[in-house]
Amino acid sequence: MPLREACGVVGITTTTPVLHNLLIGLRALQHRGQESAGVALWDEGHLTRRGMGLVAEVLTNFETRFHDAKAGIGHVRYSTAGSSSLRNAQPITASFATGELSLAHNGTIANQQELREQWETEGAAFMSDTDSEIIVRLIAHRLPHTGSIVSAIREAMGRMVGSYSIALLHNDELFAFRDPLGIKPLCLGELPDGHVVASESVALDAMGATFVRDITPGEIVQLTPEGVTSHPPPAGGERAFCMFEYVYFARPDSRMDGTLAYSVRQELGRQLWNEHPVEADLVVPVPDSGIAHALGFAEAAGIPYREGLIKNRYVWRSFIQPHDEQRKATINEKLNPIREFLEGQRVVLIDDSVVRGNTSRRIVARVREAGASEVHLRVGCPPIISPCYLGIDMPSRDEFIAPGKSVADITRDIGADSVGYISIDGLVRAIGKPHDDLCLGCINEEYPVPIPGERVRGQATLEEFEA
Amino acid sequence: MPLREACGVVGITTTTPVLHNLLIGLRALQHRGQESAGVALWDEGHLTRRGMGLVAEVLTNFETRFHDAKAGIGHVRYSTAGSSSLRNAQPITASFATGELSLAHNGTIANQQELREQWETEGAAFMSDTDSEIIVRLIAHRLPHTGSIVSAIREAMGRMVGSYSIALLHNDELFAFRDPLGIKPLCLGELPDGHVVASESVALDAMGATFVRDITPGEIVQLTPEGVTSHPPPAGGERAFCMFEYVYFARPDSRMDGTLAYSVRQELGRQLWNEHPVEADLVVPVPDSGIAHALGFAEAAGIPYREGLIKNRYVWRSFIQPHDEQRKATINEKLNPIREFLEGQRVVLIDDSVVRGNTSRRIVARVREAGASEVHLRVGCPPIISPCYLGIDMPSRDEFIAPGKSVADITRDIGADSVGYISIDGLVRAIGKPHDDLCLGCINEEYPVPIPGERVRGQATLEEFEA
Amino acid sequence: MPLREACGVVGITTTTPVLHNLLIGLRALQHRGQESAGVALWDEGHLTRRGMGLVAEVLTNFETRFHDAKAGIGHVRYSTAGSSSLRNAQPITASFATGELSLAHNGTIANQQELREQWETEGAAFMSDTDSEIIVRLIAHRLPHTGSIVSAIREAMGRMVGSYSIALLHNDELFAFRDPLGIKPLCLGELPDGHVVASESVALDAMGATFVRDITPGEIVQLTPEGVTSHPPPAGGERAFCMFEYVYFARPDSRMDGTLAYSVRQELGRQLWNEHPVEADLVVPVPDSGIAHALGFAEAAGIPYREGLIKNRYVWRSFIQPHDEQRKATINEKLNPIREFLEGQRVVLIDDSVVRGNTSRRIVARVREAGASEVHLRVGCPPIISPCYLGIDMPSRDEFIAPGKSVADITRDIGADSVGYISIDGLVRAIGKPHDDLCLGCINEEYPVPIPGERVRGQATLEEFEA
Amino acid sequence: MPLREACGVVGITTTTPVLHNLLIGLRALQHRGQESAGVALWDEGHLTRRGMGLVAEVLTNFETRFHDAKAGIGHVRYSTAGSSSLRNAQPITASFATGELSLAHNGTIANQQELREQWETEGAAFMSDTDSEIIVRLIAHRLPHTGSIVSAIREAMGRMVGSYSIALLHNDELFAFRDPLGIKPLCLGELPDGHVVASESVALDAMGATFVRDITPGEIVQLTPEGVTSHPPPAGGERAFCMFEYVYFARPDSRMDGTLAYSVRQELGRQLWNEHPVEADLVVPVPDSGIAHALGFAEAAGIPYREGLIKNRYVWRSFIQPHDEQRKATINEKLNPIREFLEGQRVVLIDDSVVRGNTSRRIVARVREAGASEVHLRVGCPPIISPCYLGIDMPSRDEFIAPGKSVADITRDIGADSVGYISIDGLVRAIGKPHDDLCLGCINEEYPVPIPGERVRGQATLEEFEA
Repeated sequence: MPLREACGVVGITTTTPVLHNLLIGLRALQHRGQESAGVALWDEGHLTRRGMGLVAEVLTNFETRFHDAKAGIGHVRYSTAGSSSLRNAQPITASFATGELSLAHNGTIANQQELREQWETEGAAFMSDTDSEIIVRLIAHRLPHTGSIVSAIREAMGRMVGSYSIALLHNDELFAFRDPLGIKPLCLGELPDGHVVASESVALDAMGATFVRDITPGEIVQLTPEGVTSHPPPAGGERAFCMFEYVYFARPDSRMDGTLAYSVRQELGRQLWNEHPVEADLVVPVPDSGIAHALGFAEAAGIPYREGLIKNRYVWRSFIQPHDEQRKATINEKLNPIREFLEGQRVVLIDDSVVRGNTSRRIVARVREAGASEVHLRVGCPPIISPCYLGIDMPSRDEFIAPGKSVADITRDIGADSVGYISIDGLVRAIGKPHDDLCLGCINEEYPVPIPGERVRGQATLEEFEA
Repeated sequence: MPLREACGVVGITTTTPVLHNLLIGLRALQHRGQESAGVALWDEGHLTRRGMGLVAEVLTNFETRFHDAKAGIGHVRYSTAGSSSLRNAQPITASFATGELSLAHNGTIANQQELREQWETEGAAFMSDTDSEIIVRLIAHRLPHTGSIVSAIREAMGRMVGSYSIALLHNDELFAFRDPLGIKPLCLGELPDGHVVASESVALDAMGATFVRDITPGEIVQLTPEGVTSHPPPAGGERAFCMFEYVYFARPDSRMDGTLAYSVRQELGRQLWNEHPVEADLVVPVPDSGIAHALGFAEAAGIPYREGLIKNRYVWRSFIQPHDEQRKATINEKLNPIREFLEGQRVVLIDDSVVRGNTSRRIVARVREAGASEVHLRVGCPPIISPCYLGIDMPSRDEFIAPGKSVADITRDIGADSVGYISIDGLVRAIGKPHDDLCLGCINEEYPVPIPGERVRGQATLEEFEA
Repeated sequence: MPLREACGVVGITTTTPVLHNLLIGLRALQHRGQESAGVALWDEGHLTRRGMGLVAEVLTNFETRFHDAKAGIGHVRYSTAGSSSLRNAQPITASFATGELSLAHNGTIANQQELREQWETEGAAFMSDTDSEIIVRLIAHRLPHTGSIVSAIREAMGRMVGSYSIALLHNDELFAFRDPLGIKPLCLGELPDGHVVASESVALDAMGATFVRDITPGEIVQLTPEGVTSHPPPAGGERAFCMFEYVYFARPDSRMDGTLAYSVRQELGRQLWNEHPVEADLVVPVPDSGIAHALGFAEAAGIPYREGLIKNRYVWRSFIQPHDEQRKATINEKLNPIREFLEGQRVVLIDDSVVRGNTSRRIVARVREAGASEVHLRVGCPPIISPCYLGIDMPSRDEFIAPGKSVADITRDIGADSVGYISIDGLVRAIGKPHDDLCLGCINEEYPVPIPGERVRGQATLEEFEA
Repeated sequence: MPLREACGVVGITTTTPVLHNLLIGLRALQHRGQESAGVALWDEGHLTRRGMGLVAEVLTNFETRFHDAKAGIGHVRYSTAGSSSLRNAQPITASFATGELSLAHNGTIANQQELREQWETEGAAFMSDTDSEIIVRLIAHRLPHTGSIVSAIREAMGRMVGSYSIALLHNDELFAFRDPLGIKPLCLGELPDGHVVASESVALDAMGATFVRDITPGEIVQLTPEGVTSHPPPAGGERAFCMFEYVYFARPDSRMDGTLAYSVRQELGRQLWNEHPVEADLVVPVPDSGIAHALGFAEAAGIPYREGLIKNRYVWRSFIQPHDEQRKATINEKLNPIREFLEGQRVVLIDDSVVRGNTSRRIVARVREAGASEVHLRVGCPPIISPCYLGIDMPSRDEFIAPGKSVADITRDIGADSVGYISIDGLVRAIGKPHDDLCLGCINEEYPVPIPGERVRGQATLEEFEA
């Protein structure tokens, strides 16, 4: 099974040192991954720093040379515990015939296992578990044949199936490219003296860059301080943007492919009211991810909005030492219900999505303990029934609460008075893009690219497909 | 001038180990101080750990003995840069005739300088800059004469002028006491197998303790696993609770002296609308501290509430290394305006308070840059014109924006279209307590205790008073 | 019982920044204490840094102000595990009527418990367990009465019984003083632009300072960049220099009170041969402390000197984490015998001293395992039978191997073929000073100052004395 | 030019957990590299830990799984500053067709650049700068063709030119192999419940293992808890053991290929006296590396041996922070001359080798300043005139003092009264092996394997060879 991870990337090239802006960009993308952070900069060679932890913790105390560099890329990463080691942190750096290459990758190469096994049969050894090493090797492998890095990237893209938004430093040249379906976001910005790419527009905002446009699906761009050269995709036009970026993953103030995440979330709240109205006294968000949805719901419903659950901002990260399992912060520490607001009230609780259902169960119980007479859960994402193979870290199918269960079952399981999920149609409408321009794999089990054992959208499973 | 600092305290005694709950309590109070953290526990002697940083950073990797201890106190602290050193971190620990004493203190002893100088004249040497050492010495000094720790505390209280909410461990005995005016909060809770005191009720909530009551102003309590012995104040009844705890400092879900902070803030928003109505399209909070006020304002005004500024939760702490001044996160990194919401709109911006005005100026400018046609600032706290000497870390008088300025001046200075501060009467009404039960020193220049150079409420200045 | 510890001190005042030389001095004294290190410097106030660990680990990354300071003191410390905490690290800093005072102390105040209890009865609270706090308080207490720091130190010395070599910074004024018997070493040096004091002359050598002279027992000196003012002791002339500094503790290249430690150790080796000759093939030192003795012995005996035991220089410090007891380096890791040298040989093993005997027993066994046909242990210090109360960290009496045992018993216990200790007369002769000018408490149970339960040299025990 | 580095390796397989012994072994080899340390262990997958620093600093706080592992390898490393980064730390770990492989390597692959370039032309990308990655790839590349790891190693050895002593973990199988000339040491030991390989026999001694034998040049061994399977080299018998291991690099108590390093060094001292006698009063070693040579010299000469220079054991490692260049410990801090011994004396100073000459120059000056009337330098290694390309970290040719200079020139340059180097013949005699069994490249410019630009022993340069 592909390595599951979620990441953010930044790349900058300017006529002045880039480190300061690179760090600002990475801090703006920190929500995309808090497990490791890294940078690779060009100063007559690739200078690299990678570490386990937050940007503010591990990307400090740089030597002077880092402060001088005028081109660089950066990465933040989250991954499932098993493969959470420094060995897999990014950017990955390699050297080959034409020099050095560093690469920061958000997404998942779905056919990495196939490529890896094929090469292993030929006698290859892999120095990491990451699909980023696969990408580096694909590019390196084509370079002697193509003679140009752009052509090598293009040919490598022809071999890669999956999602990828990538910032790449080849010696001092900065490139960025995005998979042909544009599954993960990537956008382009302009600084007074250079250019920048980043996973989300908030990184541009934070460093005071001007948003220029999204990188087109399948496009390769080369950035220089002076300008941007685009190498558009050969053909196509098919798209499959990850709906979960809008629902939960991206920062609310990010615009992706022209649409503001916050607006989508508010609209999801409004649609939820339309689809699942309920008589109630209060609309209460699960902070922070349910706030925008809850405001939309409350406005549409005309029911007062109340912050009935207060989040402790200092336990968002567990800082757990090995063997200190018992110290893991409980839901009691993280979310505190306000009895004064909830007592005797019929409460609509709004969450952005429900994955395993454990947290929802505990929150519903806490809200009841605080005196709520009824607790109705409304969820801004359709039931998640299938894993993500394309760049969102999710548990495996048998850990989800929804598969094979009726909403009545789920309601009972979670202990709510009612549960209402947004419909797939409602979700698509809230996003405001054509149904076929979105990747809905985790909610409709149809994936935009072939995944072993899963159905390709509008088609058979890979196995059927190959048969 | 007294050392300025803000702090949180916890104390627990149970029949089972306390460390786990002590850390939960301190994490729940982390908003009261992020600069240093410490604990002192009893296990046949006082075991101490203090460090610069967050609870989750410095209170880890304890030796086995700490895990066994069944009584302990803890502290989180913020102070002005000058005295921000490990030497002044708390709890402070001392040994004297009857054993060991550790003390965690929130508040400021206003006559510490006087006491210090008097003792210095007599040949005393002080091992720290803290007023906590003054308190320890006062208690120790009376102990041989009184023979009882409670009497010694009582006599020490007779010498101390100022604010103090204190958890104190004398050998394995846990005590707590609060200054006669009850300036800083302190409450009592019950655990299944013991008792706990904490600066705010949220610490009790987080560890699953039941709130019992606030410690009465001037009261000394002794806590044991089995019960609580109260030593009520000799007389009095005068009160002076810090209004700023309700306005900004305490967590919104804390109840202090019977009143929920969140409710006060919402009510401040409603009062603000009554006092300073304005024709506008949107109510936008300065997150996070202005959210409750803004929701109250929007509700009262019937103007839509919009989260037009998004906070980057990962730059709340600067993690600044020495000499890295230039990396200090700017307002651009911390708060990102959403153009889609603000463009062409008449915006009411709600903040909890304005101290120096610099942040307000920058936020107003950012909101304008994002396209707002008008920006009206409403502030949930009257103009701050005088320093706090009693437990809130504030700059000195000449750094405030308000003293000696008209609101028109301030409006111009900040660059808003209008500025409206809540009135003192409006504030008092929102808190719902008698005017004379509050400390309003920073907004009316009348302090509940004598401060050199300042006016005592209902009286002359200390100098006049002593003359 | 007094806190047991061993320490080193440095103090420098120059017309240029002192930090660099202060750290060189402390590193040269690192053998005197590896547990904590600290400095206090004057730059319009006392700047302090203290930490657990080596100088090179904890005294780094100083802020700019430390680099500017032109007067400062430093300290390295070792103490028994129980009181090994940051709270007791030095220099200790205090403030009082005339300003700030920082103090670095080597030695032990024997009557500290008495002073402490007396003050505690009067209501004093102590902020640390150290006798340094006692000294600070004694000085502070006299200051208002004397009006001069020198007089206050002199009066404090009148109250202090024990050993002390002290560097003291009073605001920007540097002082040094030594107990009336000169028990611990302290010497004075000259830099191109200032003056320095240090526990051992090697600290002067390392920073390129010129040795001027030892501080006289009972003398107080004030150092300025320009000169040195001496305040000689009122009378006396009695001395009691710690013989163990020569035998083991000081660095071999240090000169103390006119005598080079290395020469004493070589002479001890020669005397050992005279007192305990033995027919043997090889003389083998226990490295590193027995090397000088062994060279002297081999030379006198005309028996070849061989390094038959090789030390692993990387396990000298255990770096043991809590709970990692099992990783503690064994004698096998620390000392490796060379079979090629030892096999079939009659070996004289030379150690500087034997305290508990455990290490000697293991080394003798290892040397036998490596094939030695005979192992004769020769010890450069008479049997240690009584604790040190005056500045050397030693176990308590019942942990020593020697008390109440004959040499035959000890020989059997250690498993050697013979054991020969240097005699007290031999030791005194090797040192080359009058018997009465040395402190021999740990080997003859007669102490130069009154110790509760012990005999004062030439007198009765304190109890008898007081009776 | 090949990456220059010096390293130590250990590998253990037992029926009980290996971590404890692995760490003991690495600490015993710490002198071979203090810059990075790492381990790879098998516990249903390769668990790895690598870090910059000493074993005792970076190999701590392991998770439980590491403590359970029963097979593992370890590495310590030193390299020239330029490539001193975590990215190049070892063991290196890779995965390929038959599972996982971790490898710890001491030595240098001389044709790595050639192999690297050839592969790069074919489109390969390298994830590190190390020759270890080259070795891993060579093995992986042959594995599909050979079907056996031993055959793959054998075929890989056929492509590798240079020095290598390697411990290799393939899944849970432990292998070790040594280059066909046996340039770097590697030996085999037995534990009560398993087997171990290590760079030097001292690692076996430290963990209480029994030395079995050296790994034969060109041999591959597989170790299991129960036994050792040897795959002897196909033919050959040529040898080229690094003479510098005996002269300086190995620990004195190590036996390599049957010869104790200490004995070689003593004998070098004796030969030095024979070759370069001098009338003098004292023989003084440069500690620690010149001690054994000096004892041999003194014995042969009948001149007294004196430790006239004392080393500060606490400045052996600089602990220098970035930008703290000025704190670098000087020779004054590291070595302190004892005037009492040196004054007015004719001194023979013995050092193991002279590379750049800077240190020698400073030491000679210090000894003169301490009063020596004459200083004669005797050096236990012939003049170093050519770089090491095979596993000893040395500067480049133009930094050596000796090339193109007469001994008279060098004497003047260093400021000695006379300088005497051991002759190559004397060196070979002291080692006691045939001249042709040693690698003498750095002293006679004839290398045992082809090095670009250098002469192969008994042959032409590679260029001539290929022409």
